[in-house]
Amino acid sequence: MAVKDVKKVVLAYSGGLDTSVILKWLQTTYRCEVVTFTADLGQGEELGPARDKARLLGIKEENIFIDDLREEFTRDFVFPMFRANALYEGCYLLGTSIARPLIAKRQIEIAEKVGADAVSHGATGKGNDQVRFEIGYYSLKPDVKVIAPWREWDLTSRTRLLEFAEANQIPIAKDKRGEAPFSVDANLLHSSSEGKVLEDPWQEPPESVWQRTIRPEDAPDTPTEITVEFERGDAVAINGERLSPASLLTKLNELGRANGIGRLDLVENRFVGMKSRGCYETPGGTILHAAHRAIESITLDREVAHLKDSLMPRYAELIYNGFWFAPERRMIQAMVDESQNSVSGTVRLKLYKGNTIVTGRQSPNSLYSMKYVTFEEDQGAYDQFDAQGFIKLNALRLRLGAMAGRKGGAV
Amino acid sequence: MAVKDVKKVVLAYSGGLDTSVILKWLQTTYRCEVVTFTADLGQGEELGPARDKARLLGIKEENIFIDDLREEFTRDFVFPMFRANALYEGCYLLGTSIARPLIAKRQIEIAEKVGADAVSHGATGKGNDQVRFEIGYYSLKPDVKVIAPWREWDLTSRTRLLEFAEANQIPIAKDKRGEAPFSVDANLLHSSSEGKVLEDPWQEPPESVWQRTIRPEDAPDTPTEITVEFERGDAVAINGERLSPASLLTKLNELGRANGIGRLDLVENRFVGMKSRGCYETPGGTILHAAHRAIESITLDREVAHLKDSLMPRYAELIYNGFWFAPERRMIQAMVDESQNSVSGTVRLKLYKGNTIVTGRQSPNSLYSMKYVTFEEDQGAYDQFDAQGFIKLNALRLRLGAMAGRKGGAV
Amino acid sequence: MAVKDVKKVVLAYSGGLDTSVILKWLQTTYRCEVVTFTADLGQGEELGPARDKARLLGIKEENIFIDDLREEFTRDFVFPMFRANALYEGCYLLGTSIARPLIAKRQIEIAEKVGADAVSHGATGKGNDQVRFEIGYYSLKPDVKVIAPWREWDLTSRTRLLEFAEANQIPIAKDKRGEAPFSVDANLLHSSSEGKVLEDPWQEPPESVWQRTIRPEDAPDTPTEITVEFERGDAVAINGERLSPASLLTKLNELGRANGIGRLDLVENRFVGMKSRGCYETPGGTILHAAHRAIESITLDREVAHLKDSLMPRYAELIYNGFWFAPERRMIQAMVDESQNSVSGTVRLKLYKGNTIVTGRQSPNSLYSMKYVTFEEDQGAYDQFDAQGFIKLNALRLRLGAMAGRKGGAV
Amino acid sequence: MAVKDVKKVVLAYSGGLDTSVILKWLQTTYRCEVVTFTADLGQGEELGPARDKARLLGIKEENIFIDDLREEFTRDFVFPMFRANALYEGCYLLGTSIARPLIAKRQIEIAEKVGADAVSHGATGKGNDQVRFEIGYYSLKPDVKVIAPWREWDLTSRTRLLEFAEANQIPIAKDKRGEAPFSVDANLLHSSSEGKVLEDPWQEPPESVWQRTIRPEDAPDTPTEITVEFERGDAVAINGERLSPASLLTKLNELGRANGIGRLDLVENRFVGMKSRGCYETPGGTILHAAHRAIESITLDREVAHLKDSLMPRYAELIYNGFWFAPERRMIQAMVDESQNSVSGTVRLKLYKGNTIVTGRQSPNSLYSMKYVTFEEDQGAYDQFDAQGFIKLNALRLRLGAMAGRKGGAV
Repeated sequence: MAVKDVKKVVLAYSGGLDTSVILKWLQTTYRCEVVTFTADLGQGEELGPARDKARLLGIKEENIFIDDLREEFTRDFVFPMFRANALYEGCYLLGTSIARPLIAKRQIEIAEKVGADAVSHGATGKGNDQVRFEIGYYSLKPDVKVIAPWREWDLTSRTRLLEFAEANQIPIAKDKRGEAPFSVDANLLHSSSEGKVLEDPWQEPPESVWQRTIRPEDAPDTPTEITVEFERGDAVAINGERLSPASLLTKLNELGRANGIGRLDLVENRFVGMKSRGCYETPGGTILHAAHRAIESITLDREVAHLKDSLMPRYAELIYNGFWFAPERRMIQAMVDESQNSVSGTVRLKLYKGNTIVTGRQSPNSLYSMKYVTFEEDQGAYDQFDAQGFIKLNALRLRLGAMAGRKGGAV
Repeated sequence: MAVKDVKKVVLAYSGGLDTSVILKWLQTTYRCEVVTFTADLGQGEELGPARDKARLLGIKEENIFIDDLREEFTRDFVFPMFRANALYEGCYLLGTSIARPLIAKRQIEIAEKVGADAVSHGATGKGNDQVRFEIGYYSLKPDVKVIAPWREWDLTSRTRLLEFAEANQIPIAKDKRGEAPFSVDANLLHSSSEGKVLEDPWQEPPESVWQRTIRPEDAPDTPTEITVEFERGDAVAINGERLSPASLLTKLNELGRANGIGRLDLVENRFVGMKSRGCYETPGGTILHAAHRAIESITLDREVAHLKDSLMPRYAELIYNGFWFAPERRMIQAMVDESQNSVSGTVRLKLYKGNTIVTGRQSPNSLYSMKYVTFEEDQGAYDQFDAQGFIKLNALRLRLGAMAGRKGGAV
Repeated sequence: MAVKDVKKVVLAYSGGLDTSVILKWLQTTYRCEVVTFTADLGQGEELGPARDKARLLGIKEENIFIDDLREEFTRDFVFPMFRANALYEGCYLLGTSIARPLIAKRQIEIAEKVGADAVSHGATGKGNDQVRFEIGYYSLKPDVKVIAPWREWDLTSRTRLLEFAEANQIPIAKDKRGEAPFSVDANLLHSSSEGKVLEDPWQEPPESVWQRTIRPEDAPDTPTEITVEFERGDAVAINGERLSPASLLTKLNELGRANGIGRLDLVENRFVGMKSRGCYETPGGTILHAAHRAIESITLDREVAHLKDSLMPRYAELIYNGFWFAPERRMIQAMVDESQNSVSGTVRLKLYKGNTIVTGRQSPNSLYSMKYVTFEEDQGAYDQFDAQGFIKLNALRLRLGAMAGRKGGAV
Repeated sequence: MAVKDVKKVVLAYSGGLDTSVILKWLQTTYRCEVVTFTADLGQGEELGPARDKARLLGIKEENIFIDDLREEFTRDFVFPMFRANALYEGCYLLGTSIARPLIAKRQIEIAEKVGADAVSHGATGKGNDQVRFEIGYYSLKPDVKVIAPWREWDLTSRTRLLEFAEANQIPIAKDKRGEAPFSVDANLLHSSSEGKVLEDPWQEPPESVWQRTIRPEDAPDTPTEITVEFERGDAVAINGERLSPASLLTKLNELGRANGIGRLDLVENRFVGMKSRGCYETPGGTILHAAHRAIESITLDREVAHLKDSLMPRYAELIYNGFWFAPERRMIQAMVDESQNSVSGTVRLKLYKGNTIVTGRQSPNSLYSMKYVTFEEDQGAYDQFDAQGFIKLNALRLRLGAMAGRKGGAV
């Protein structure tokens, strides 16, 4: 990016040291006006200090944007994703991935509002987040200029970063002098840790990595029983109490935390082509995922459920790779959402020392028919003799194959 | 089946009351010679009594077949399935489904050997097992006659069954007089319970349902740490001790049982078209599944892993529906097996009160590259600037779409 | 079906000999009231004679239903299917399959209206049509009774059928005395022929099989050029003339017929488990399919197009197998339809002796950007240097694999 | 690429003007030793002049590599791809895509042999070929240096290129002075044209674009009938004459050319993110594709065929995008190849003015059973009554859904 090209840039600003350095670096390198955007996505930090720090670094009042996006995040991003039962590589609930498009979207909205021609973020050049931010930017504002300082600047060591901060009067919190033992990201859905002490996948993560849940060993010896109510695929109440999306997820997080639920230590495949190891805590999401599958188990038609399952890996991959604002994600979402019309009812679960155990599910839309499935006499609901024809015609092609010399399904 | 058509039938015989009634019913209804086949698949019952009972019911010595199939079951059925990480409907490890084709195969082998023209089994007309048995039979011996007594006879109540047993001098164990509170199937991989008291999916299963694992609450307060070693996708050793497939699974079962691992309470969709509720215990399999995914996480290429994941639901469905001996299952297996060439290494896990927690993985074939992923200076292994072009071309179609008025990935 | 159980049955009645025999057989066997339903789906036959014949066979006036369904057929069945570019087994445009659900739907509507408890059709027990009819019936009226005479009666030879007709004063057209050399089905979308002289897949079909198109050899020596206009995925005009769906398809059929377009000689796999050989003529549909793909080629996003393509085989299979009225078909349809929002524009084609040749496509929603793709200087629209990073990161996992000894993508 | 880094580079050299300029540019820019590699892939040009020109430009004799790769190309690249029935975006037979990995492979082999540290090609920075070459290079030699002159140099206009040529004594053929009206690529499988006069997708391609086939209008008025014999998925003989792979494809090309077969005018989606328009001629491949589908139609099990079809779009995309040497391509290939064991037999076709018409197929491995499918009395091979149970159980979930208020498959 030629430095003279940028007039005004909207920076995703956390208020921390790194993005403060970026702020100053943008000012000095591009000599452009900087607009800061700080979001409350439930990461559990006060936003006041971010405002103070932005002021301190010379940002004009009208250029400081601070938004509480917790409800929008949960309602329009987390919940749609959970309708699809999305798991990346069989395990990961995509807590970081799903937050990035919302930040990108809000940055672009602010850019449109303040007439900025550029946006910037603090993600590194090796990770997935840069991709998620920037694909969001480009798909929402195709002519936007994107500044990714970590790919551009020469502050490539901690020492140089601190030197730059000092040279530019950026306050450095005492505990930021030393290097963090790992890198953390957090929002209402999850906390993630990666890098440094976690880089050897054979080494067990130190207990200090886990900040969002207590150890299963430290959780209560008695299970906690809860109910979760769903309407059209979304959770709407816990234990009979209706809650807004963010409040509900907050409540599930508390329940999960207290019962040691939602830890994951994973080696995953990044979109940029390498493997990385992440430690994730998704306490509420883990419960929500199990509950959603359970309510679907009695309300979805079999083939609908299987079709969803067959597309889920692709859907999860799209979100992981940063394609939330892509038409193929919207198409799969349209299909998933259509399937959720009947996904209403109640699930009962036991939470116990890391376990999420479904113990009951009921729904006004249930397709489970005790009359049909019963071991008892069913008054002719089901004619067992039908099974013979069903089996014989399902087997016919295999019989014909066997007669032609391909026994046992030889190809 | 016209009763005069059958000369000799091979019956899958457990030695229990139901299959003993079937044995006698076949003799009296079809007036044919009956050959019994009893398999040890690790269900945890002595086979001696089955032999005694067959003799008692008039089966000739040369017509009594009793086989220990535990190794074959684990090596040729369970392990190939675990290479695919198969889960039916997101949860179920397919413990019953995977045993049926082996029984069918052995029945047909015996039928060929003794010159039998028919086979018979004790599965009901509402369930999946009839399909799994019979598709196996037909694909291995396309002209075989299949007798499914539960679909044919009039012994449709417990009372009539017991009357028939008494009228035919079939010994009835005292505890079989009353009706079982639920129906059980077991083998080395799992135990399943369904029916009767479990038919209301809102009611929590009684503790008596769980026979294979202790309650998580009753498991030790201290985690058990183990290592599992893999070679080409199959587990070969526990804690450094090489074990045969069946011995290894037995060992994992013990570890799982003692730590309350592997319980599942599920509403699932049967192939015959209805939903049913099953309670499954797969202690060793649950550990094996987690360990296998972990070793794959460092040894499989990303796209290979994702391709496997995308086909897994179909593969699991094939096994659930009874198509083990079908060419499409073999084709997917060929692909899965090809992917396992490099899946060797060691996984470390903690077992604790229902939890299976991966804490480390290492492999001589690891694709995880600390050099590339590191947060530290990487000596130029990875050029962060490449990410810019990567993102820009991945975003190009979305930018072109946005320029054409489809912002944010509008379809 | 116990004969005393049926009160009133709605029969899919063509007016031909076979369904007339069925009509009489239903009356004599089930002693029930028979309601006839005859549809004009564009099969090219007058419906008046069907009414006369129904009267002759004693059907009350209020029990004779004759409907012109050509517009509904094209608009609500053919067009949605063409939005998906559906081809069964790579070739077949599903002309018979797509007509069955509409007939089933209308039969059930009539059954509800006249208070009938049963429906009946003239499809044989070996084919797909019985499945398509009956799955339609059951999914629309789950308690309906279904009578499939060809699976029940003993009129299994042509001779017995004719004897029954004569014994029951059913008029027999002279040309129906002898056996037809093959069996035909026709509607506005296609004509199909199968059976008898076509049963040997090595024998070329006799020219007499083709009734809907002239031989390519006999078509004009000069190409016919046409344009087809689309709006949101559906064709709306030919050569600038707006036409209703059925009129448009009729027009395309004429164009196709005259240019020898749309013949297909195929061995396909039936849902009931056997292979069969069919000869199909889909003149208008063949043109429509090519034109639709062409308009999509400039209006659909790449990943949307690929996602559609990946689901198309499943969608086609669903229709072929009779699952039009199934939720999984509706879900895929929802996704397909969502993709068609932008599929508007004009395609120009040349029709010539069996060939359908696309020669141009344009759209107000085109995503084709001459500015980006041009071989000429593009004024910086596209930075060729981006390709380097794009390639390097796409190759990274393969490079890491090669460094780990898996050169050339060894698995 | 820092210019001092390269010692010796293997250039994919056609002998034409562009790659001659590249050759000289590499010598002058990188001051490195240049090795030329020229392949005969059936593009229809003499290779002698390439050798002469390389000499003229100062390449040492031992650094000139010229290989006839036609057999390897057909046997190891084209044929495996045709086993999968690969079509990109429903139409394109991938003629350019499939040649690139072989060139890349041979370049790397030569690099290993001569101890070169770099490779270079003449593909532009906007197209797919750069990706296909370079992904091939990286996956075969992960430390290779890649020089893509079109992305690096400043010879961005025709004028500057010609100036450079003149300044460096590169001979310029008279017909290369002016700009070509479009860009051409050719090999034994196909010829492609794109760019310039083809850039407006509404304009019909000029007849001069088509160089490999005669106009359908100019083809003989009488069809040509041929037979193609297959063994395990590959064509081995034409009209009973056994031919090597390349000879067979050459023969099919002649037949296709003479009958005006294999033209395609397509707007496609490039991997790098834009749409482009290509005109392709694949005369022999078009015949081969139709014949292969036909022989599969009688030899493949239904589910095998459908599984192949469901993976085909992904397989074609992999090849189009350049991932021939990727493990996921190899995995799908393993599956496809497994399916071809039984794909042997003979197909008869009529070629006529652009049409490829299958008129018969036969195989010793045929799964087509006249006995089962016949409209005639089948002596009990198939029990029509089985269809009732088959349908009823296939419909059960839909009936249960309808009873629960979801009529007609409402989701």
